[in-house]
Amino acid sequence: MSSIDLNCDLGEGFGRWALGDDEGLLDVVTSANVACGFHAGDPAGLARVCAGAVQRGVVIGAQVGYRDLAGFGRRFIDIGYDDLRADVTYQIGALQALARAAGGVVRYVKPHGALYHATNSHDRQAAAVVDAVRALDPGLALLGFPGSLLLEAGDEAGLRCVTEGFADRRYGDEGLLVPRQQPGAVLTDQGQVTTQAVGLVGSVESICLHGDTDGAVALARAVRTALEQGSRVEPFCGNGS
Amino acid sequence: MSSIDLNCDLGEGFGRWALGDDEGLLDVVTSANVACGFHAGDPAGLARVCAGAVQRGVVIGAQVGYRDLAGFGRRFIDIGYDDLRADVTYQIGALQALARAAGGVVRYVKPHGALYHATNSHDRQAAAVVDAVRALDPGLALLGFPGSLLLEAGDEAGLRCVTEGFADRRYGDEGLLVPRQQPGAVLTDQGQVTTQAVGLVGSVESICLHGDTDGAVALARAVRTALEQGSRVEPFCGNGS
Amino acid sequence: MSSIDLNCDLGEGFGRWALGDDEGLLDVVTSANVACGFHAGDPAGLARVCAGAVQRGVVIGAQVGYRDLAGFGRRFIDIGYDDLRADVTYQIGALQALARAAGGVVRYVKPHGALYHATNSHDRQAAAVVDAVRALDPGLALLGFPGSLLLEAGDEAGLRCVTEGFADRRYGDEGLLVPRQQPGAVLTDQGQVTTQAVGLVGSVESICLHGDTDGAVALARAVRTALEQGSRVEPFCGNGS
Amino acid sequence: MSSIDLNCDLGEGFGRWALGDDEGLLDVVTSANVACGFHAGDPAGLARVCAGAVQRGVVIGAQVGYRDLAGFGRRFIDIGYDDLRADVTYQIGALQALARAAGGVVRYVKPHGALYHATNSHDRQAAAVVDAVRALDPGLALLGFPGSLLLEAGDEAGLRCVTEGFADRRYGDEGLLVPRQQPGAVLTDQGQVTTQAVGLVGSVESICLHGDTDGAVALARAVRTALEQGSRVEPFCGNGS
Repeated sequence: MSSIDLNCDLGEGFGRWALGDDEGLLDVVTSANVACGFHAGDPAGLARVCAGAVQRGVVIGAQVGYRDLAGFGRRFIDIGYDDLRADVTYQIGALQALARAAGGVVRYVKPHGALYHATNSHDRQAAAVVDAVRALDPGLALLGFPGSLLLEAGDEAGLRCVTEGFADRRYGDEGLLVPRQQPGAVLTDQGQVTTQAVGLVGSVESICLHGDTDGAVALARAVRTALEQGSRVEPFCGNGS
Repeated sequence: MSSIDLNCDLGEGFGRWALGDDEGLLDVVTSANVACGFHAGDPAGLARVCAGAVQRGVVIGAQVGYRDLAGFGRRFIDIGYDDLRADVTYQIGALQALARAAGGVVRYVKPHGALYHATNSHDRQAAAVVDAVRALDPGLALLGFPGSLLLEAGDEAGLRCVTEGFADRRYGDEGLLVPRQQPGAVLTDQGQVTTQAVGLVGSVESICLHGDTDGAVALARAVRTALEQGSRVEPFCGNGS
Repeated sequence: MSSIDLNCDLGEGFGRWALGDDEGLLDVVTSANVACGFHAGDPAGLARVCAGAVQRGVVIGAQVGYRDLAGFGRRFIDIGYDDLRADVTYQIGALQALARAAGGVVRYVKPHGALYHATNSHDRQAAAVVDAVRALDPGLALLGFPGSLLLEAGDEAGLRCVTEGFADRRYGDEGLLVPRQQPGAVLTDQGQVTTQAVGLVGSVESICLHGDTDGAVALARAVRTALEQGSRVEPFCGNGS
Repeated sequence: MSSIDLNCDLGEGFGRWALGDDEGLLDVVTSANVACGFHAGDPAGLARVCAGAVQRGVVIGAQVGYRDLAGFGRRFIDIGYDDLRADVTYQIGALQALARAAGGVVRYVKPHGALYHATNSHDRQAAAVVDAVRALDPGLALLGFPGSLLLEAGDEAGLRCVTEGFADRRYGDEGLLVPRQQPGAVLTDQGQVTTQAVGLVGSVESICLHGDTDGAVALARAVRTALEQGSRVEPFCGNGS
């Protein structure tokens, strides 16, 4: 029986502003990409998400992003290697401390938003992320898109690289995601989403769900239930503390 | 022969903005209170300070502050316990990661500016700092003002508490600092400063110098030279990594 | 027939983060306290609120706050006179430009959150707000709490000062609000709220509703309907552009 | 006798952090590109620069930038049209208010750093700046690079467009600036700089000096003295308030 991980972005509120149902999603996923404060996430909110993850045995990952609260990390920033590398180190460390104070451990790193897309193809930015992770803790895994420069560079650096697929995004030619701006880019029909999720098993190690839409928890549950018919839904890395 | 530590605030620039001569002061002090990004300090600049400290064997401390770049952490903020505790944890962790990537370790925590003053007497804010440190790593020392609530609470929590005195600030009645706003609050005469520094040996474990004034490095050198006549100038904690 | 204004805080999202139903509330209130970016409100979101207000003839006010996105402006900051005065000027000007680009005009200023409370009794902070308004445009009105230092200082400065009452907050002794932390401080029963609103007519010029709770729009409508039985619900200042 | 303007970036400190000699440069230039708080400039510091400009009859311009204090506005951000347009409107309005409180008026707009470079060729970003200016106040001039998309779009929009040249930057083929990264891109020899400045008269309406280098004031004085041999050094727009 094959094994598959379910990951989701969490901790993406900021102070007074909530976003998504962190508690509800922690009940469903196996890995939590927790924001680190640069694109979203105030420390007290992140501490609560870490505590919730530890309580449920959900694996904690650091979702690092551009320093851009106003843009939610979704705007490409032409940041230099030294700055990005230090920004990534800083963010991972901040979340490591919050996780540790909650009795947990950060196991992996995943870039967020525009940084995720940039590191698919921008070699200096991909290198900055990889070098930050390697210098800080080579035991951290990298979660990213199959065929991305990020995972290629991570692989060369000896990091464990984990591929993910998207249950609710349409794939176009050559296995790339159809850009969000195009009609039909996001799948919303539950049947389609669960079918696509099941179809991804075997080709990727983790499936990414989005948490900031209405009905995200219900959709996540449906995906998990469908996956459990033929796979063990479990973290891509063990979760012993 | 008695032993005395020399500490100074470092890493207090931000991006394009420089402040103080970090390299020059690292050559003189034994402990560096490195900013953590909330009141000052961009990650790449902090990484450079950590590297400079590691290179010279200077002990690294986390100088945590209020989230207030515009006010440089010098304005009291009436922040609640949960938020402050998480903010402190976040900052320490961020600096721990930057230090680790540079081959070093954070050994102690010192509050900055208005948070320093608040934790002298504000019990909830003092408790938030102490509880953050204890939950994250009880091996971290606390550096603060003799008789402060911070050190009292730290002591009760079992943390190593280190007292400091100020070479260049006038002490008034009951051993408190004369407020900065009052005339003569800051000593600038080199003879006065070195005499006061030498006089502090024995009553405190560390002497704090200020790095953001003209001639700060020369003054720091003079203080160190004077102290070395009768004391071993060395970190209050050992610096094995 | 007496006249009464209905005001509400609007534009308090930030980028990806929404807060409250701005469009729904603009249909009900006569004056909009629009955030100015320091405690909440990204420029594009504020531009949309201004456009919505202009479209409906709702009067635009500048809701100025402390520079504290993480704390939503709800934490007292011990900011000096010069900094606060300039911060207030900056915020009003920013909103004036967004209003003007939308075909509107800023008519009044109201402090937000902890700054609102501080200017009830903190004379330097009250003076900073009043002096900022007077130097920028003495035609701007001030909206505040009856008996506050803010309105007292505004009065002395020759500004038009407008008093407001709260429909959904319990009043305690001496006409002060029961602090939020105490049980029963916030009224949620629609009958109680509308009764209190109607009872405030005559003693204040404006009634403040809160927009960030569930059912805020329905409650606002009920209050307006109740007020319309005996009063003209209209802006405290005319709205000719 | 021909007429030439001298402009310089000012107000680029932030809170505790100073940058450049604003007072010294205000004594030399005829137009001040005053930062607006997004890439640099805290409101109180900007208020002081505005007061200094008013006192000397120096024309005030709004130097708008990306929201990026950590990067000083020097990193390209792939911001959308609506957000950039509102960000520009917000910044201009904020400076207008500070200028007005100081008895002055904002006369023109100049993009800063990476936004300056982007609007040379990025049509959506150039359009966002132009549309923001036109909707807010079509009497504002635009200051920019000859042949840039910004000035082209500004021209079509009916805005007064003013061209500038750089005294201390080397021009390469086709009249473009040699990128800063290349050796020799920045001229530092006083003779070279003044010669280039004098040579620019006639082909541009304004000459830009940089204020954040050592000796910036002395160099600015030398340029002005050289220009005064053959030209009237005066603002490109009159300065009646």
